[in-house]
Formats: sequence, structure tokens, C-alpha cells
Amino acid sequence: MYGFLNDYSEGAHPRILQLMLEHNLEQNLGYGEDVHSQRARDYIRKLINQPRADIHFIPGGTQTNLIVISAFLRPHQCVIAADTGHINVHETGAIEATGHKVVAMPGVNGKLTPEAVEAALKYHRDEHMVQPKMVYISNSTELGTIYSRTELKALHDLCRSRGLLLFLDGARLGSALTCKTNDLSLEEIAELVDVFYIGGTKNGALLGEALVICRDDLKTDFRFLIKQRGALMAKGFVTGMQFEALFQDDLFFQLAQHANLMAERIAQAIGACGYRFYAPPCTNQLFPIVPKALLPQLSEQFLFSLQEEVDDDHSVIRLVTSWATTEEAVAALIDFFQRHRA
Amino acid sequence: MYGFLNDYSEGAHPRILQLMLEHNLEQNLGYGEDVHSQRARDYIRKLINQPRADIHFIPGGTQTNLIVISAFLRPHQCVIAADTGHINVHETGAIEATGHKVVAMPGVNGKLTPEAVEAALKYHRDEHMVQPKMVYISNSTELGTIYSRTELKALHDLCRSRGLLLFLDGARLGSALTCKTNDLSLEEIAELVDVFYIGGTKNGALLGEALVICRDDLKTDFRFLIKQRGALMAKGFVTGMQFEALFQDDLFFQLAQHANLMAERIAQAIGACGYRFYAPPCTNQLFPIVPKALLPQLSEQFLFSLQEEVDDDHSVIRLVTSWATTEEAVAALIDFFQRHRA
Amino acid sequence: MYGFLNDYSEGAHPRILQLMLEHNLEQNLGYGEDVHSQRARDYIRKLINQPRADIHFIPGGTQTNLIVISAFLRPHQCVIAADTGHINVHETGAIEATGHKVVAMPGVNGKLTPEAVEAALKYHRDEHMVQPKMVYISNSTELGTIYSRTELKALHDLCRSRGLLLFLDGARLGSALTCKTNDLSLEEIAELVDVFYIGGTKNGALLGEALVICRDDLKTDFRFLIKQRGALMAKGFVTGMQFEALFQDDLFFQLAQHANLMAERIAQAIGACGYRFYAPPCTNQLFPIVPKALLPQLSEQFLFSLQEEVDDDHSVIRLVTSWATTEEAVAALIDFFQRHRA
Amino acid sequence: MYGFLNDYSEGAHPRILQLMLEHNLEQNLGYGEDVHSQRARDYIRKLINQPRADIHFIPGGTQTNLIVISAFLRPHQCVIAADTGHINVHETGAIEATGHKVVAMPGVNGKLTPEAVEAALKYHRDEHMVQPKMVYISNSTELGTIYSRTELKALHDLCRSRGLLLFLDGARLGSALTCKTNDLSLEEIAELVDVFYIGGTKNGALLGEALVICRDDLKTDFRFLIKQRGALMAKGFVTGMQFEALFQDDLFFQLAQHANLMAERIAQAIGACGYRFYAPPCTNQLFPIVPKALLPQLSEQFLFSLQEEVDDDHSVIRLVTSWATTEEAVAALIDFFQRHRA
Repeated sequence: MYGFLNDYSEGAHPRILQLMLEHNLEQNLGYGEDVHSQRARDYIRKLINQPRADIHFIPGGTQTNLIVISAFLRPHQCVIAADTGHINVHETGAIEATGHKVVAMPGVNGKLTPEAVEAALKYHRDEHMVQPKMVYISNSTELGTIYSRTELKALHDLCRSRGLLLFLDGARLGSALTCKTNDLSLEEIAELVDVFYIGGTKNGALLGEALVICRDDLKTDFRFLIKQRGALMAKGFVTGMQFEALFQDDLFFQLAQHANLMAERIAQAIGACGYRFYAPPCTNQLFPIVPKALLPQLSEQFLFSLQEEVDDDHSVIRLVTSWATTEEAVAALIDFFQRHRA
Repeated sequence: MYGFLNDYSEGAHPRILQLMLEHNLEQNLGYGEDVHSQRARDYIRKLINQPRADIHFIPGGTQTNLIVISAFLRPHQCVIAADTGHINVHETGAIEATGHKVVAMPGVNGKLTPEAVEAALKYHRDEHMVQPKMVYISNSTELGTIYSRTELKALHDLCRSRGLLLFLDGARLGSALTCKTNDLSLEEIAELVDVFYIGGTKNGALLGEALVICRDDLKTDFRFLIKQRGALMAKGFVTGMQFEALFQDDLFFQLAQHANLMAERIAQAIGACGYRFYAPPCTNQLFPIVPKALLPQLSEQFLFSLQEEVDDDHSVIRLVTSWATTEEAVAALIDFFQRHRA
Repeated sequence: MYGFLNDYSEGAHPRILQLMLEHNLEQNLGYGEDVHSQRARDYIRKLINQPRADIHFIPGGTQTNLIVISAFLRPHQCVIAADTGHINVHETGAIEATGHKVVAMPGVNGKLTPEAVEAALKYHRDEHMVQPKMVYISNSTELGTIYSRTELKALHDLCRSRGLLLFLDGARLGSALTCKTNDLSLEEIAELVDVFYIGGTKNGALLGEALVICRDDLKTDFRFLIKQRGALMAKGFVTGMQFEALFQDDLFFQLAQHANLMAERIAQAIGACGYRFYAPPCTNQLFPIVPKALLPQLSEQFLFSLQEEVDDDHSVIRLVTSWATTEEAVAALIDFFQRHRA
Repeated sequence: MYGFLNDYSEGAHPRILQLMLEHNLEQNLGYGEDVHSQRARDYIRKLINQPRADIHFIPGGTQTNLIVISAFLRPHQCVIAADTGHINVHETGAIEATGHKVVAMPGVNGKLTPEAVEAALKYHRDEHMVQPKMVYISNSTELGTIYSRTELKALHDLCRSRGLLLFLDGARLGSALTCKTNDLSLEEIAELVDVFYIGGTKNGALLGEALVICRDDLKTDFRFLIKQRGALMAKGFVTGMQFEALFQDDLFFQLAQHANLMAERIAQAIGACGYRFYAPPCTNQLFPIVPKALLPQLSEQFLFSLQEEVDDDHSVIRLVTSWATTEEAVAALIDFFQRHRA
């Protein structure tokens, strides 16, 4: 059985484990104040060319989202997201549990447009309604698509002019940055958004997301907020070391690149077999539309997930590659589709 | 420099890492539904002799506390804790952030007494006040003391008769269970409380707490609550494997025993040198009272933390041993005190 | 200037004030335990033929909604509402501020259908998503429409079979019950829903909503929840007396009937002049579609509100009648439309 | 039976009702934007000599407390109060329900001291603990005592120098201001605190508290927060008119003065009979210590409440006078104590 279920099925990349093993019996300070976390922060600061950025390592993405959003909004303020946004549908109301409404607007291939943000602003006009204060986007999105520099700049400009914070969920940022069609650097992203994170869990780490806060006025007391939500880990060095390993050289980018390459091969082959995609293939998540009749056979050999039904006879499936996806698995999947053309 | 700052300074016990390495490239299901988590659950179920217990692995203690407490209380209900209780002072208002008051009652050596619980019940008498619904205790406590079977039974009986839930924070349960004066088994604890957890972070794991829910009526929908608070980890097998390693044999108990043994040697030596203790030494946390004048010298050689001032000339310090504390460090510390008798 | 802005522009019906004046210097118990509140409860219990119903008087509708919804849901549960539902758009995120997501589904003329509820249930399928537990409807709706017995019964049956609570916001229940096309009695409503309220503010009282809880299992500790949200008024008898006056005879129904009669005359006249309506006219809220060009003139003589734009040339306006709307005002409005036919 | 149970047993002072009756059928704008609310605001602004103060009318005290506190604190911040403070014990956890811890410090006769605030600041020292950001006091306090100018100035200075907000709960501010020993004017209070309210409910109104926000930076979006908590009343003019009546001349002060005068007579007489007081008598709440044996007889003739037991034979009772307390009731109570000397 070959797995294309997600990008968090395996442990960590061996070089990450290697670094953890080397320092295993070393005594480190707790709560993220250790030297490994400091080094990891420095690597990232250098990469984004922001020597004063605050960087915090947080165990998971949902936790990062809920901490960031509740840290910066007053009680009556809301966050705008695409309807497919992770915070809107796949976090069991984590944001609402901190007291804030998620205002969902129709996305375009999983992306939020300036027009959608404008529409949300226009609609919310007085004190009987929540007040938009933050825009949440993910890159890559939940549909595997990415924001171009032009698109991100447009959102940035709109947010700036309307007093909105721009928050980028980068659970799969590695995949976005190393995608062939990408024209944004990590440094540019750090300039264009107010706060974002770099996902480790889905790019080769055991766990961990690196939250980057560039704006000075957003830095105040942030460790209190991490602690209050239970995300200030006693052994903070465990995530610190992993980001140290990911960023002391270009391992982070290599891993993402591998995942993308594997996905690209699959996408090309599937496309060549006559299949269409629910969203344009781009990063390590693919959403081909396949006949329902084909699913039982596909399931015998491969792990994948069902995204949704498109008509009585067809479903969208989700195929995910990762840093650990083997060429053998890819070849088997391609072979399957070549034997079952659309 | 020898470290007695806490029990979470090192990585994981080598046998835990070994198991993780062996299975590193294996593909596992996400969100705790993997075989390692299942095995770890089975080991624990067997140990407590409760084959139907629900067991969830959660990254950290504050997170576990806030999930459990907010899962089982209605909005107007509160939790009773000792004034020294972790949830009362050291979680940045994590419980209040979920909407619930922590009613703090004076503890005796860090322990909550039935009399204190009764007093809280008597005081909260109508709908103008919060309604006590849960009792929170930790074992070992924040002062390193433990509950005897008689003491726990008394709290159990009171809670049962007054309709209160009894929740035991076991961040340092290993140390409590392997303490010389302990007369409670893990099985008995599981019988006497409604919900409790077994701490991994402070007993040799990289991270993770094993939450055990015995009562059927408390099991419903618990995974929703874990997810909502951001604690349902994509790579749940990372904590699952660690508890597998801790409980597939008696590693969990061995590690705690070592920490206790190291602490015991220190306590005996310090006591023999004429020092008194703020709370009776028992598990892996010691609270000797030392002259302030001694602190600069002590700091040159050892890492420890200041607990509080007792008078103009004396302070309570906290010394913590762990599974990784070396005999050499212990000897050095004993030597120091023998050279500086009270 | 004639006012059709809303049904809460005037004070209270004189018979309500009369009763308040008679008892003004009487000493009453606080917090709703006075004889007037008791009498009001008894009148309502008799009317709904539920001698054991719990009835609480709460100052306002938003407060009632947030207390009810947060009282009965666990943290991970959500409430389903029509997209036009008051809790979804016009309460500044009051429900989310208590921690719960409002899942908005497309309504039909402001009404929630069983199909929409089924769709929401189907979509929310695992612990990564909120769990639907309550259905919120308003009668009359935010578009002035009402639920027929058949429609309410269908929602009731669905909720019963799927374990959902059914909550009816009756801020304008008087208008719904006395509407010509209504086929539901107050008694039937009390049977078909789990909890509902009878609006006083918008039907002749100074303030106050009478919340009715029929199911025994929902009654527990409800006064704690009212108090916690700041709605247990010291002078609870102020609202108690008003509901006493409204229900000691049929004043409540008379007032609503008058409002409906005034609206009906307007609707017939406007319709006869060739105007269409955004939602079918039925109760005391009317939503005619008028040329934008007409608005300036209309505004010179009448107060009303703009609901939304329908096209470049037309807008929906909202006209509201009340217990205090005069025949003179109605005649003037009809005259205006007769002079400006569509 | 004569009532000394509280100051909210009767309706409203006749002059308040008179003004409401005069304007009953007038059409007013909703949500506090009516002319009566505007006039009431202007009267209060003039009285405090702050023409730019924001003033909001809110139905009740608990609601006002929870709105103010949650409006100005970030999630990790707490409010410091005296242990007897209303928010700490008598609001069913309303503040915690908005996510914030109430840090209770020992009060002196119900008053919070600068020393207690300093102690709380010293104790809360890092991100593992909540961060003090606001000081809550009530004047008069829950024990009927008042703050002198010197005391309030000291709290003000401390709050200013330590970056804390100072919030004064004035549910019984009228009684404090008209108390014989008071040396603070309303204008001075408005200068010394950041936000406060003037209680109507306990000083002759049917309901309502006038919240005064002087600092510009605290004014932003406050109506959103009122709405979100369900306190933006549709018929806001109902409370507006009442404050108009209370402040268009000196009715507010007259009513409080009467209550104080009645209390003073009782206190002098009881004291002369040899009784001691739990807190020094000062405003309209008295706390004499009486033999338990006397309570049955006292209860036959008078309504009062039991505050707490002081020893096996004595209890503290609470006697409250109001604007509506009659000389006859006072004479009867004095007569009783003169017949039962200590």
C-alpha cells in the first residue's frame, strides 16, 4: 500500500533526528530560551532579512492560528478568511472558542481576493455587526494553490489602507516557496504580511511551526499568550532543534522541493491521462476528479482521501506528497492512472 | 555547572529515541489513530486494569488542564484547587481564559484537604456565585508532596457524595508513584479519580501527557475538545511512540525511581547538615531553606530556582532531580552543603 | 414626520405603565422572585398549558440568545441558523463571544428549512469540525415571514430524530401569532420547540423577553447562567410587572394584532399600487422594493430603513408598524404610495 | 413588616416616572441615540466638567463590570480587586466568563489599598502568570465604606505610574458622594479614575447605570462591546430618560442623601445601644453585629440579610436603607434595638 494521504505520516527527516540525538543529554533552558531555539531564530531572521523579528516555536497549526488571532483582536473584531480556509472549517471552532467570528468569503481556487475582502468590509458597517480587523490567508492554500507576488501585494495594500492585519498561515509554506510557479521569496512574504508562520510538521519535522512577528507593536507580551493557550512547551528546545536543523542549511527547501517534484510528476501523468483537476495542480496537494467507479480499485493499492462529490459519477480526491514520498510510490500511482485513462 | 533547575532540561531517554528511530520512516495514520498510540493505550489500560478507559495523548500539561476543565464544566461552574495549584498560579490564567473561575483554597503542604473543599462548598451557596463542580489536585504536588491512599480516598468520597468531579494532574505522577512513602498504585488512582493524566514531559519523554478518562459519561466527544484547543497533533504517533516505550516495560517507573533516589540522597545529606525544608522532602522536588548569604556561592556551581523568601535572611530554593540527573552532580551538591552546614 | 423605523420607538402601552404605577412604592423581592413575576409566569404557563415550565424574564433579545445558546452547548458544539438569522449578522458576534460558531445556511424567505439543517449535519462529519447541536429559528423571521405548523413540525421532527435542540427566538412572536395566515398556537409552539421566548420589547413593553424552558433537563441551574451574563436584574419585578400586564388578559395579542392590521393595510395598498415585495408581507415588517429615485421624497415625510440594494435602480426598504402606529400615519403612507405608483 | 433588605425593592422615584409618562408616546431613536439620553449625557458631562466624556447607559451593574473589564484587557491580563469586591464573589464568575482572572487581595474594610496592589504586582512577575492591568474598586464598597480623596489619589498615582487602568464601580456612588465623611466630588472622581459608573438601579431608577469613559484611548468602538454583550437596549431612551430625571436637577443627590440620613439615624441608635459594627457605618449599608438569639425576633418585624457568622453566638447582619425608606420604618427599627440593648 502506497500512502498519499497526507504529508505528516512519517517521523522526521534523518538530519533533524541526528541533531536531536547529538544534543540529547545536554541540559537546556526551558520554555524556548535555549541556544538551539536562539540559533534557529537567527537563521530565520537572516533569511527574511529582519534582524529584529520575534520568532516563537509553537507545537501545531491550529494552536498557532488561535493564539495569533485572539492575541491581536479586541472582543468585537473578526477575521476574514476564504470559505475553504482552515480556520473556517477544519479547526472545530477553535477561533470562535476564543470569542471571535470567522467571516468566510467565497474564495477563488482557495484564495482570498481583495474584492472579497472589500465586500466583507462593506457589509459590516455598524456596531450591530462584528468589525473586520484581520485577514487570514494560507500559502499554499487548502486547495494546494499559491499566491503570486501581485496577489499578495494587492492584499497587503488593501489591508494597509483599511487598517487590517494580514496573517499568513504557512503550514505548507515550504511547498509554496519551492513551487515552480512561485515568484515570492520568504523575505518578500515577511515584508508583505504582519505575521506569518513557517510550517515544520508538514515539511519534515516531528512537530512545530515557527511563528514570525515582524511588526513591533504586535510583539508585546506574546509569550504570555502562548503560555495561556498551553503552547509554551517545557522542552521548547525540541522544536527549536528541529528548526535549527531545517534552516542551518537549505534542508527546509530541499524537503519541500522533493514533495513538489513528486507531485508534479503525478499531476503531469494524470493530466496526460485525460483527468481534470478541481484546482490547478501546483504544490504538494493534488485534487484530481475521478470516476467514483474507479475508487475501489484505487483504494486497494493507495491511501488517499475523498474531498467531495462533484456529480453523481465523479468525486474529487486529494493526493498529497511529502519529503518522504518515494519514487517507487509515485511510479506505481502513475502506472495505475495510465492503466485507467479518463 | 550542575543543573537542578527542573526535570525537563534534557531530551528523551535513549530507549524512547530508539523506538522512534526504528519506526521513523514507517507511514502512520494521523491524529493519534496510529498503532503506536493504540499499543501505548493498551499498556496503560492493562496497568490500571480498566480495559475500557479512554486515553488521549496531549502535548503539554497546561493544555491538558485547560481541555479537561473546560470539557466538563458548564459555564457557571468552577474548579476548586489548592492555592499553590498549578492552574491557580502558573498557567497565565489558562483556565479563566476558557471561562471558568479557579477557586483557590489554602493547601496543606501543597495538598487540598476535604475540609478546604467543604469550606468552598459551604461558601458558594446561590446563583450569585459560581458553582463548584470539580476538584483539581496534583500528585505529586507543586511542593513535591504526595497524597496517601487515605487522603485520596477521603477526597474521592467527598466528591462522590457532593457530585463533584475529581481531576488529578499527574505531570509528576511517576515520581509520586515511586516515592518511598507512597501507598497508592496506578490502578487505585484510576479507581479513585474521575480523570487524570500521566506525565511524560517531566519523566523522560520529549513531550506528552497521557490523559485517562475512566468514567463513560465523560468520554463523549472528547476528541472534538482536544482538536478545538489545538492539541490533536497531526503526528500523534510521536507522543504515542514515546508512551509505548515508557510502558511496554517498566521504563516509566525506572526513570521516576532514579529521580527520586537522587533526590532522596540530597535530602538526607542536606537534612544531616542541619537544614530545614519548606515542605517535607518526598519526591524529586526539594525545597530546602537556605541563608541568602549562601546563594551566590551556590549559584556559581549549580542551577536551581528561588521559590520564595521566608525571612530577611533566608530563602526557599527549589532543587529538582530527573531521570537524567547524574550521581556526579548529586555528589557535588552534597559536597557543597557538607562544606556549608547550617 | 411619521415613523415606520421599528417597533421600539415609543415607551410602553399605558395599561402596562398603569400597573407599574399602582405598585411603584410596594416592596418587592429582588432578582425575579417577586409576586408580579410569579403571576406573569403563571399566566404564561396556563396559556401554553405547561404548568411546570420554567420562565425567566431577561432584559433584551441578544442577551437571551447568548444565554440560551451558551447554556446548552458544550464548547465544541455549534448552532445552525438561517443566513439572515439575527444571531448570525446583527449581534456583533455575541454568540461567538461565548465560544460557539454559528453555522449559517441559506434561508428561504428568512426561514430555515429541514433540508438546510440536513445539509449542515451532513457536512459536519468528524472531530475536525464543530458539532451541530442546536437549531435557531425566529418567528416571525427577520424578513417578517412566519413558520406554518407543518414547517415547524418538520423542524421539530428532524431535531428530535437527530438529537438537536430547537430554539425559537420570539422577539416578534406576538406578531407571528396574530398574523392572518398563522396556524400555530402558543401552546403548540411550546410543544414543538425545546426553548423559546416571548418578546416584550417589540410588543408594547419598556423592555423584557419572557424565556420559556419546557424540557426538564434544560432547567438546571439556569438562574446561574442568567446572573453570569449580567441579566438577573435587581429589580426583576420591573419586567415581571410588564408581562403581568401583557398576559393578565389578552393585551399582548391585542397589541400585536394592531401592529399587524396597520401593516396589512399598508401592504395591500402598496401592492395595489404595483410594488413588489422582497419577502411576502405577513406580519408587522414589510419589505417593498422601491425605485431609488423615490427615496428622497419618501424620506421627507417618513422614517424607514434601507434593507439592501436589488439593482442599480431599486432598493428594498423596511417598514415596521407597532402597537403604537396610528391610523393617521398609515393613511399618510398609503396616500404617498398612491401618489407614486410603481 | 419593614424592609431593610436592599435598596432596590421599590420601583422608581415618582419624578422619574413622571418624565417617562410625559414622553411615553413620543417616537425616539433606538439604541441610546435619542434626545433624552443625549440630555442626560450633557447633564453628567457638565457635572464632571468633562465635555468630551463618553457616556453609555447600561441596564445593570454586573453587565457594566463585565463589559468594561473585557473591553480593555488583552487575553492574558487580569484585574485586581479587594477580596470582598463584587466582581470577585457575587457575579457568578461573570468576569472569568469573559476570559479574565480576578486577582483578589485582602481588603481593609472592603477597600483596596495601594500596598495590596503593589503586592499583587510584585507577585505576578513573568509570562507564566497573568499580567495585572486594571484595578477595580467600588465606592461605596460592598461593606458600605468609602474612599477618601487621599486614598483614591494614592491608588490613582500608583495606577498611573505602573500602567494600570483604574475602574470604579459606582453602583452606590450616590450614597458615597452624599455621605457625611466624604471629601470627594464627582468631578474629582472623574479626574482620578479612568472609567467609572454612576448607579441608577440602587438610587431611585427602575434600572440603569451610567458608564463614564474619560480617557480618549478607551472610547474606541465601545458601542460594539456593549452590543456584543447584549446591553445595547433597543429602547435605550428608557434608561436615558431616567438619568435625565436624576440629573436635570439634584434629584440623584437628594435620593442618596435621604438613604444616608436614614442609615445614620439607625447607626447612631444601634451604636448607642451598645452594638458594634463589622465595618464602620458610613453610607446606606450597615453591618451591626448582633446576638444570634436576637435574630428570630428581629425577623418577625424586619427584612434584612445575614452577612456572616462572627462567632458561635454572634452574626453580622446587613441593613440597607434607600431613597424610599420611611421615617416610620426607621423609628420602628430603632425602637426594636432600644428594647434589646447589647
